[in-house]
Amino acid sequence: MKVTLSALDTYESSFTPLVVIELAQDVKEETKEWLKNRIIAKKKDGDNNDDFLTMAECQFIIKHELENLRAKDEKMIPGYPQAKLYPGKSLLRRLLTSGIVIQVFPLHDNEALKKLEDTWYTRLALKYQPIDNIRGYFGETIALYFGFLEYFTFALIPMAVIGLPYYLFVWEDYDKYVIFASFNLIWSTVILEVWKRGCANMTYRWGTLVMKRQFEEPRPGFHGVLGVNSITGREEPLYPSYKRQLRIYLVSLPFVCLCLYFSLYVMMIYFDLEIWALGLHENSGSEWTSVLLYVPSIIYAIVIEIMNRLYRYAAEFLTSWENHRLESAYQNHLILKVLVFFYNTILYHLLKILFCLLHNCIYAMVLLISFSLATLLITSQILNQIVESLLPYWLQKKHGVRVKRKVQALKADIDATLYEQVILEKEMGTYMGTFDDYLELFLQFGYVSLFSCVYPLAAAFAVLNNFTEVNSDALKMCRVFKRPFSEPSASIGVWQLAFETMSVISVVTNCALIGMSPQVNAVFPESKTDLILIVVAVEHALLALKFILAFAIPDKPRHIQVKLARLEFESLEALKQQVRATVLKNECISLQDTEQYDPLLVKC
Amino acid sequence: MKVTLSALDTYESSFTPLVVIELAQDVKEETKEWLKNRIIAKKKDGDNNDDFLTMAECQFIIKHELENLRAKDEKMIPGYPQAKLYPGKSLLRRLLTSGIVIQVFPLHDNEALKKLEDTWYTRLALKYQPIDNIRGYFGETIALYFGFLEYFTFALIPMAVIGLPYYLFVWEDYDKYVIFASFNLIWSTVILEVWKRGCANMTYRWGTLVMKRQFEEPRPGFHGVLGVNSITGREEPLYPSYKRQLRIYLVSLPFVCLCLYFSLYVMMIYFDLEIWALGLHENSGSEWTSVLLYVPSIIYAIVIEIMNRLYRYAAEFLTSWENHRLESAYQNHLILKVLVFFYNTILYHLLKILFCLLHNCIYAMVLLISFSLATLLITSQILNQIVESLLPYWLQKKHGVRVKRKVQALKADIDATLYEQVILEKEMGTYMGTFDDYLELFLQFGYVSLFSCVYPLAAAFAVLNNFTEVNSDALKMCRVFKRPFSEPSASIGVWQLAFETMSVISVVTNCALIGMSPQVNAVFPESKTDLILIVVAVEHALLALKFILAFAIPDKPRHIQVKLARLEFESLEALKQQVRATVLKNECISLQDTEQYDPLLVKC
Repeated sequence: MKVTLSALDTYESSFTPLVVIELAQDVKEETKEWLKNRIIAKKKDGDNNDDFLTMAECQFIIKHELENLRAKDEKMIPGYPQAKLYPGKSLLRRLLTSGIVIQVFPLHDNEALKKLEDTWYTRLALKYQPIDNIRGYFGETIALYFGFLEYFTFALIPMAVIGLPYYLFVWEDYDKYVIFASFNLIWSTVILEVWKRGCANMTYRWGTLVMKRQFEEPRPGFHGVLGVNSITGREEPLYPSYKRQLRIYLVSLPFVCLCLYFSLYVMMIYFDLEIWALGLHENSGSEWTSVLLYVPSIIYAIVIEIMNRLYRYAAEFLTSWENHRLESAYQNHLILKVLVFFYNTILYHLLKILFCLLHNCIYAMVLLISFSLATLLITSQILNQIVESLLPYWLQKKHGVRVKRKVQALKADIDATLYEQVILEKEMGTYMGTFDDYLELFLQFGYVSLFSCVYPLAAAFAVLNNFTEVNSDALKMCRVFKRPFSEPSASIGVWQLAFETMSVISVVTNCALIGMSPQVNAVFPESKTDLILIVVAVEHALLALKFILAFAIPDKPRHIQVKLARLEFESLEALKQQVRATVLKNECISLQDTEQYDPLLVKC
Repeated sequence: MKVTLSALDTYESSFTPLVVIELAQDVKEETKEWLKNRIIAKKKDGDNNDDFLTMAECQFIIKHELENLRAKDEKMIPGYPQAKLYPGKSLLRRLLTSGIVIQVFPLHDNEALKKLEDTWYTRLALKYQPIDNIRGYFGETIALYFGFLEYFTFALIPMAVIGLPYYLFVWEDYDKYVIFASFNLIWSTVILEVWKRGCANMTYRWGTLVMKRQFEEPRPGFHGVLGVNSITGREEPLYPSYKRQLRIYLVSLPFVCLCLYFSLYVMMIYFDLEIWALGLHENSGSEWTSVLLYVPSIIYAIVIEIMNRLYRYAAEFLTSWENHRLESAYQNHLILKVLVFFYNTILYHLLKILFCLLHNCIYAMVLLISFSLATLLITSQILNQIVESLLPYWLQKKHGVRVKRKVQALKADIDATLYEQVILEKEMGTYMGTFDDYLELFLQFGYVSLFSCVYPLAAAFAVLNNFTEVNSDALKMCRVFKRPFSEPSASIGVWQLAFETMSVISVVTNCALIGMSPQVNAVFPESKTDLILIVVAVEHALLALKFILAFAIPDKPRHIQVKLARLEFESLEALKQQVRATVLKNECISLQDTEQYDPLLVKC
C-alpha cells in the first residue's frame, strides 16, 4: 500500500489536519497536479481562521470551497478523457462519479472529541447535554437534533406520568379515552410552540437564526448552465424553475400517488385477512387460531418494512432528479415524500381501532393492537440502537486494534498517529444526515399523540427509549461514523411542520376516539346523529382554538424579536448611508428623511 | 372673524399650502409664538422636496413631524396653565384635547384634484381606475382600498354569472345547493390568493412592500414615559407590553365575550319569536299572520343595528385605552373586536337556514330568508351610498355657494381663493379611515360566499352595487370629506386575514348545506349517520386542500421575490462593509468569508 499524505498544507508550521480527500490508488500524477493547482488557486486569498471560527465552521468552509470548484474551460478531467466536464459542473462531483476521488471527509480532533465525550455521555449522570459544545464540534444541524431529542424526551414525561397508573392499577377502562384525548390536544400544541421559542433562543446565540436561504450556495448535486445569480450577482449554475416544477408535478407527484394507492391496497388485503382470522378465532376459539390472529400483523409489519425501504430509495432518486438548487429544498421534498407514505401505517392502526370500537371491541383485539403498536414502537427502536450504535462500535474497536498493530509493524517515517487515524476513519461508515433520527422521533410523537388512549404505556416506553437513545446516538456520532461535515441551520426546518401537521391530525383522531368511546355514547343512548354532530362541532372548535393559539403565541421570544429588529434597522441604515455616499459622489439629488419607511426609495 | 393665515411658510417664493392648523379663536399670542418656534425648530434642517416626493408624501411627513413634537421640559402649554404636559407627551395631542388647536388637515390641490377626477369617475366609462394617480394624491392606504374594491368587483362576476340563470329561469331548485357550494369553495380560496400577489405587485411598485412595522413611529394617541427605543435607539415614549396585555386579557376580552353572550341571547329571543310566528301562520294561515311573519325580522334588523353601533363605540374606546404603540396594531385590535361581533349576524342567518332545511323548508321561510338577506345586502348598501356620498355632496355644494358670496363680500387683501378654500374645507367632514369601506366589502363577501345557495342573486346585486360604489366612494373622497392625510401601507393588512377566515367558514357552512340538501339526502335514504360521516370527511379533505393550496401558492410573484432578496442581500453586504471599515479602524481582527451565512457574526 502506497502511503501519501497530502502535502497541500504541510508547509504551514502548526498543522492541524481538517479534511481528507481519498484518491483512488492508481490516479495519474497529471490529474493530481491539476487538482492541487485548482484547490490552491482558490486558497491563495485564504483565511487566517486560527481563533475566530470553530473547527466545525472551518471544515464547513473547506467543504464549501471544494464543492464550488466548478469547470470553466476544461472539457474533461486531465488524464481521464472519459470524465467529461462542461461549464458549471462541480469538479468534485465529477471526480467522485468517475471514481478518481473516493471520498472527502473531515478528520476527528481526538483531543477535542475526548473532552466532548466526557461532558456528554461517558459518565452516566442525569444532566443536560452540552449542546453548545456539540455545536462547536459537529455544527448546528446535529446540535439542534440533540437539543430537540432532549427537549422532546422531557416533553414526553407528563404523558408518561398520566399513562403509567392505567397500566399499574387496572382502572376503569373507559375513562382513559376522554382523559388521554383531552390532554393530548393541549399537550401536542403547547410543546411544539414552546420548542419553536427555545429553538430561536439557541440559534440566535449561535448566529444562524437569520440565516438567509436565498444566499446559500447551490447544493453539490445541483447542475445547470453557468450563469449569473440574479440576487447575488455571482456566477453559478442556473436551472429554470419551470422545468423543476414540471418534473415535480408530472413525474414525482403521480409516482407518489401510485405508491400510496398500491400500499393502501396491500394494507386492505391484510386488514381483510385479520378480520377473517378474527372471525375464525371467534367461531372455533382454539389456541391454534389465537396464534393465527397474530400472523397477519407480523407479516404486514415485514411487508411494510420492505415497501418502506424500496419507496425510500425511489424517493431519494426522484428528489435528486428534481435538481433542487438548495440543500434545504432537497431535504424538504424528500421528507414530504417519505412522510406521506408513512401516514399509511398510521391509517392502518386507526382503521383497526375504528373497527374495534364500532364492533364492541373484544379483548383479543385490544391485545392485538397493543401488540402491533408495541412491536413497532419499542422493539424496532431498541433494535435500532443495537444495530446502529452498539454493534458497529464493537466491530470498530476490534478493527482499530488490528490497524494499530499493522501501523506499528510498518514503522513509516511519517507521523504514525495521523496516518493511523486516517486509515481508521476512512473505513468508518458515513453519517447520512439527521433524517432517520428525526423520523424516529416523529414516529414516537405520532404513536404517543394518536394512540395513547389505546396504548397508554407508549409515552413511558418512548421516554425510556430516548434516555438511552441520547447516549447511543452520541456514541454513534463520536465513534461509529466518520465525522460529518458541519451544516449551519436555523431550525429543525420542515420537521417542525411535520410535527405540527401530526398534532392537527391527532386532534381529529382523538375527537373521533372520544366520540366513539362507550362512555360518551352512553350519554346519547337514542340519537347517534346528535352525538356525531356534537363531536364534529367540538372538533371544529378545538381546531379553531389550536390555530388561534399557534397564531397568538409569538414564534420568537420578545428579547430576540427586539434584537433582530435592531439588526434589520442597522443594516437598512447602513445601506442608506452607502447609497447616500454614492449618490453624493454622483452629484445626484440629496435624499430625504422619508426613506425611513421606504427602503426602496433609496434606490432613487 | 379674524383672518390669520399662518406666516410660517410665506417667506418662500413659490408657496403651495399643504396643511392647515386651525387654532381656537381666542388663543393667546404667547402660545402661538411658542408653538411656531417649536415647529420651526424642527423644520430648520428641512428638506428640499420639490420634485422628489408626491404631495401625499409631503403631507404625511408634515403630519408625522407635527405629531412627534413632544414635551421635554415644558410643564404646561405656555399661556394655558391648566393644559399640563409631561415628558414624552405629544404636544399636538395636548393642544387638541385642550381645545387650543381645533384640527389639523391637509389642503386639497384643486388643479391636481381636477385632473384626478377626470381620469377617475366624472366620465362614466367602463375602464380601470387610475390607481397610481390615486396613490399620488391620497396615499397608499386609500389607493389600496380602491384597488381592492375594483379587484373584488371583477372577482364577483363569475359568481353573478352562475347565479343569474337560477333567477331568470326557474331551474330545478336543489341543483343549486351543490353547484353553488362547490364553486364557492374554489372561488373564495383562489380570489384571495390571487389578490395577495396582485397587491404585492402594486406595493412593490410604490415602494411600500417591505415597509418595516418595527420602525414606524408611535401612533399619536400613544402615551408613556420618554425612553430610548431599543431597536432604533431614538427617544420616544415607552409603555410596557405586559400592562397592555393585562388590559387586553383582563378587560377587553371579558367585555367582548359578555357582549357576544348578550347579543346571542337577544338573537335567540327573536329566533324563538320567528318560529312562534311561523307556527301561528301555519295554523291560521290568514294574511294578517303572513305579515306578522316579517315583523320579528324587521325588528331584529333594527335592534342589531343599534347594538352594533353601541358596541362599535365601546370597541373604539377600549382599543384606544389599550394604548397600542403602532397605528397598525390599534387597527388590528379594533377590527378583531368588531368582526367577532359581526359573526353573530351571520350565525343568525345560518341558524335560520339550518332550521329551514331540517324541518323541510316551507316556501314562506325561503322567502323570509331571502327577504332579510336582501334587506341587509342591497338596501343598506344603496342607502349607504346616498347617505354617505350623494346627500353630503349636495349639501356641500349649497354651502360652497354661500361661502363664495361671503368671501367676495369681505374683499380682504389676502389671497381670496386660498382663504375661501380653507374656510370651505375646514367645515367638511373628516374621513375616518377605510374601516367602514372594507367592512362593507367584507359583508358582501360573507353573504355571497355563505348564502349564495339560498340567495343566488346576492353576487349580481353586489356587482351592481360596487360599480356605483366605486364612483360614489370616489366622489366622497374628492368632494365630501376633508382631504385625509396619506398613510403608507404594504397590504390590506388584517382584512386579508378576515377574508381568509371567512372563506374557511364558508367551506364549513357550504359542506353543511350540501349535506342537508334533499338531493344529497336522497342518495342515503336509510342511514343519516353515514351521510354525516361522509360529509365531515369531505369537509376535512377540502379544508386540508385549502390549507395546502394557500401554502403552495407563493404570496409574492417570483420576480418580486427575486428583487426583494437582492435588496436584502445588498443591505447585508452594506452592513458588512460598514462593520469591516469600523473594525479595521479599531485594529480589530479581520473578518472572514463566513459572515455570508451568518450576519450576526459580523458583530464580532
